[in-house]
Amino acid sequence: MDKIVSLARRRGFVFPSSEIYGGLGSTYDYGHYGVLMKNAIRSRWFRAMVLDRDDIVAIDSAIILHPKVWEASGHVSGFTDPLIDCRTCKLRFRADKLEDSQCGRKPSKHPGETPECDLTEARQFNLMFETTVGALQEEGSRTYLRPETAQGIFINFKNVLQLARRRPPFGIAQVGKSFRNEITPGNFLFRVREFEQMEMEYFVPPDEAEQWYRYWIEVRLNWYLRYGLRRSRLRVREHGPEERSHYSRGTSDIEYEYPIGWGELEGVANRGDYDLTQHGEHSTTKLEYVGPDGERYVPFVIEPAVSIERIMVALLVDAYDEEIVSERQRTVLRLHPEMAPVTAAVLPLIGKSGEMVGKARSLYEELKRRHTVEYDDNGAIGRRYRRQDEIGTPWAFTIDEQTSEDGTVTVRDRDSLQQERLPLEGVRAWLDDALEREWRSPKPD
Amino acid sequence: MDKIVSLARRRGFVFPSSEIYGGLGSTYDYGHYGVLMKNAIRSRWFRAMVLDRDDIVAIDSAIILHPKVWEASGHVSGFTDPLIDCRTCKLRFRADKLEDSQCGRKPSKHPGETPECDLTEARQFNLMFETTVGALQEEGSRTYLRPETAQGIFINFKNVLQLARRRPPFGIAQVGKSFRNEITPGNFLFRVREFEQMEMEYFVPPDEAEQWYRYWIEVRLNWYLRYGLRRSRLRVREHGPEERSHYSRGTSDIEYEYPIGWGELEGVANRGDYDLTQHGEHSTTKLEYVGPDGERYVPFVIEPAVSIERIMVALLVDAYDEEIVSERQRTVLRLHPEMAPVTAAVLPLIGKSGEMVGKARSLYEELKRRHTVEYDDNGAIGRRYRRQDEIGTPWAFTIDEQTSEDGTVTVRDRDSLQQERLPLEGVRAWLDDALEREWRSPKPD
Repeated sequence: MDKIVSLARRRGFVFPSSEIYGGLGSTYDYGHYGVLMKNAIRSRWFRAMVLDRDDIVAIDSAIILHPKVWEASGHVSGFTDPLIDCRTCKLRFRADKLEDSQCGRKPSKHPGETPECDLTEARQFNLMFETTVGALQEEGSRTYLRPETAQGIFINFKNVLQLARRRPPFGIAQVGKSFRNEITPGNFLFRVREFEQMEMEYFVPPDEAEQWYRYWIEVRLNWYLRYGLRRSRLRVREHGPEERSHYSRGTSDIEYEYPIGWGELEGVANRGDYDLTQHGEHSTTKLEYVGPDGERYVPFVIEPAVSIERIMVALLVDAYDEEIVSERQRTVLRLHPEMAPVTAAVLPLIGKSGEMVGKARSLYEELKRRHTVEYDDNGAIGRRYRRQDEIGTPWAFTIDEQTSEDGTVTVRDRDSLQQERLPLEGVRAWLDDALEREWRSPKPD
Repeated sequence: MDKIVSLARRRGFVFPSSEIYGGLGSTYDYGHYGVLMKNAIRSRWFRAMVLDRDDIVAIDSAIILHPKVWEASGHVSGFTDPLIDCRTCKLRFRADKLEDSQCGRKPSKHPGETPECDLTEARQFNLMFETTVGALQEEGSRTYLRPETAQGIFINFKNVLQLARRRPPFGIAQVGKSFRNEITPGNFLFRVREFEQMEMEYFVPPDEAEQWYRYWIEVRLNWYLRYGLRRSRLRVREHGPEERSHYSRGTSDIEYEYPIGWGELEGVANRGDYDLTQHGEHSTTKLEYVGPDGERYVPFVIEPAVSIERIMVALLVDAYDEEIVSERQRTVLRLHPEMAPVTAAVLPLIGKSGEMVGKARSLYEELKRRHTVEYDDNGAIGRRYRRQDEIGTPWAFTIDEQTSEDGTVTVRDRDSLQQERLPLEGVRAWLDDALEREWRSPKPD
């Protein structure tokens, strides 16, 4: 994991936030390649879950919703972790994780073992961030940053039913930031306080819920396989009854084997009719489906939910590779071409050659109309290739002396390191084709 | 404006948030077409400002930054509006807009005129949303939701300088949510409490600042013209010295003539060296550029800043049209094809014809690999066309009886209403070409 964090920082994917002010625990800012990679993840998810389907529509609800939403959903009373405070050092610890805790202050030892640590009884700490909205000086103006995007979907169930003329089974998808005031965040991007969720709530007739629950586990697992995560590092783990949320009638985690061990990548839950029923009871609007023949029921909800951050970590971990090539070590990210921050690099072999630069620039201009490409004429060609390897660019097109002789360029493959020559005017079509080809990266299994 | 709001709601672009709980003032949720349109705006901006340029990189910083960021930037002390409270009705009003205010309670009259209203002296109210982060029970854990994305860029200036090997002039762009606890939000999406900003900070040698300031006003104005906003409803208005923020050395608004009058669409500001100097002084890191020959200076910053919401309102207002066709009224959004939520609709003339449906589905499958297309077989063809007109779909491809005879389909143009026939297998190429053509909508000027 240290190697990933170091590469991510060195190449400007991700760095600790507010660093010039000493940082803000477990908060990260994304650099250029991090943004491009997040954009790729978001847009592939959105394509698979919304654009490629007839049965799912998108919404984008507010982050700050009416506070009653969180009363109805059970988050105000139940979205808590058990906490203990230390009266001496003023730090807080999760009571259920005390053995793993370290006091961050002097004497920096296990809090339970230091006589200086004067621990309180455990009490419940709500993980929602609170804030105050608007001009009213009243209790009602206190509200929360959403801890999940799902509730913004449930409260719009009726809008979608009416406006998008839907009947179950159908889904509503949402991508956006959620916030959790985690007591013990950490492990790089694995547990952070603000994260970008991608959730889809699929509304089904109650007697079809189990079947759709299995369906979505499989669809989502296949999505990860399609984007190159190796099968041996993926597994589906079904929660036991004691582990499930109170509303859940079945939850499975699609787990990935991170360097810190197996951990949740995506969760797929059968939330039953809990949420729609709750909002129906707390608001004035009954949230149910009424069919053309008068049948009425509260749909069950199947929810595949994941964050861009966890996908990013899994993709980076899975793609990271080191190898010795010509007696030199090479670091390479074997990312799926559609998940790589940059799809192709265009390089003039000699950055000071006007002719090569001219040809390279015009190829770059042509390719970047449709693809995310990078132009680089800075430094020795070997160094430029290694830079592209480290950010996972699948292909590099190099303009060299031979280009002016026979109109061809080389294309270098990130994984095989093979180079072949292509006609300059065929590069765009070659790249389009390459992106449509079935892709297999040469990862060890 | 009422017509726009009504259409936006009817067709599922935008609706009031938390509606089943009585709403939350001036907060909106976006439906399917709203999400697609926001995605289009965001991705066109990002393409123009980042992907199409060599001199600008992207970042994505956290929403909750270290609280010292906002002390250094001046937001803690200065990002305020003057407020008065009413001791009777407990409402707050902006002291500088009191004449326009209405008491929202009984007696619902102008607050200054009602004896029941007992107003306090004006005091400064900070527009940042406050919240508390993490496990520490201390003052330092109080922080804010960012009121602008710009500060997340400034504090990462040095990271970008080093990691992306940049020298001025160069820019850093960011897209993301910002939050302002507006006292008097309103006018549909024009002033909302959470909004998605698109900001770019362009770092330049101080003696080039004026020139780049002019450059960015022109570039951004042209961007709006390119996407079809009519020239007569756009103007550039330079702020007078009394109107400018304290850090500004020049600010111009690109204004649009909304139904409520001329108002800011995008702001372009010369922020001077204010921000980098402030963060350099409040943190331990000097934020300056040091050149290869040892020259050093604090760059000036030119900032084009806009929100997706304002662009969306301007595009909708500009595109909205009603006309009488064959003695029936037609409502149509004459959106630029690249800004329309749906690029093309695929319609079988008779939704119950297996053959037409089969052909229509396979055309739909082919087109949706690259474009955002919609399949609709539900209802009379005229009603389906009108639905697509209302969401601004530029083209509809219809499979009819003749398709099985000669393999052609009709393409209907949203603006001219002309229909022509194309070979089925040529539709994809026709659509690609149509999107690359210079576009002019037949709007009145």
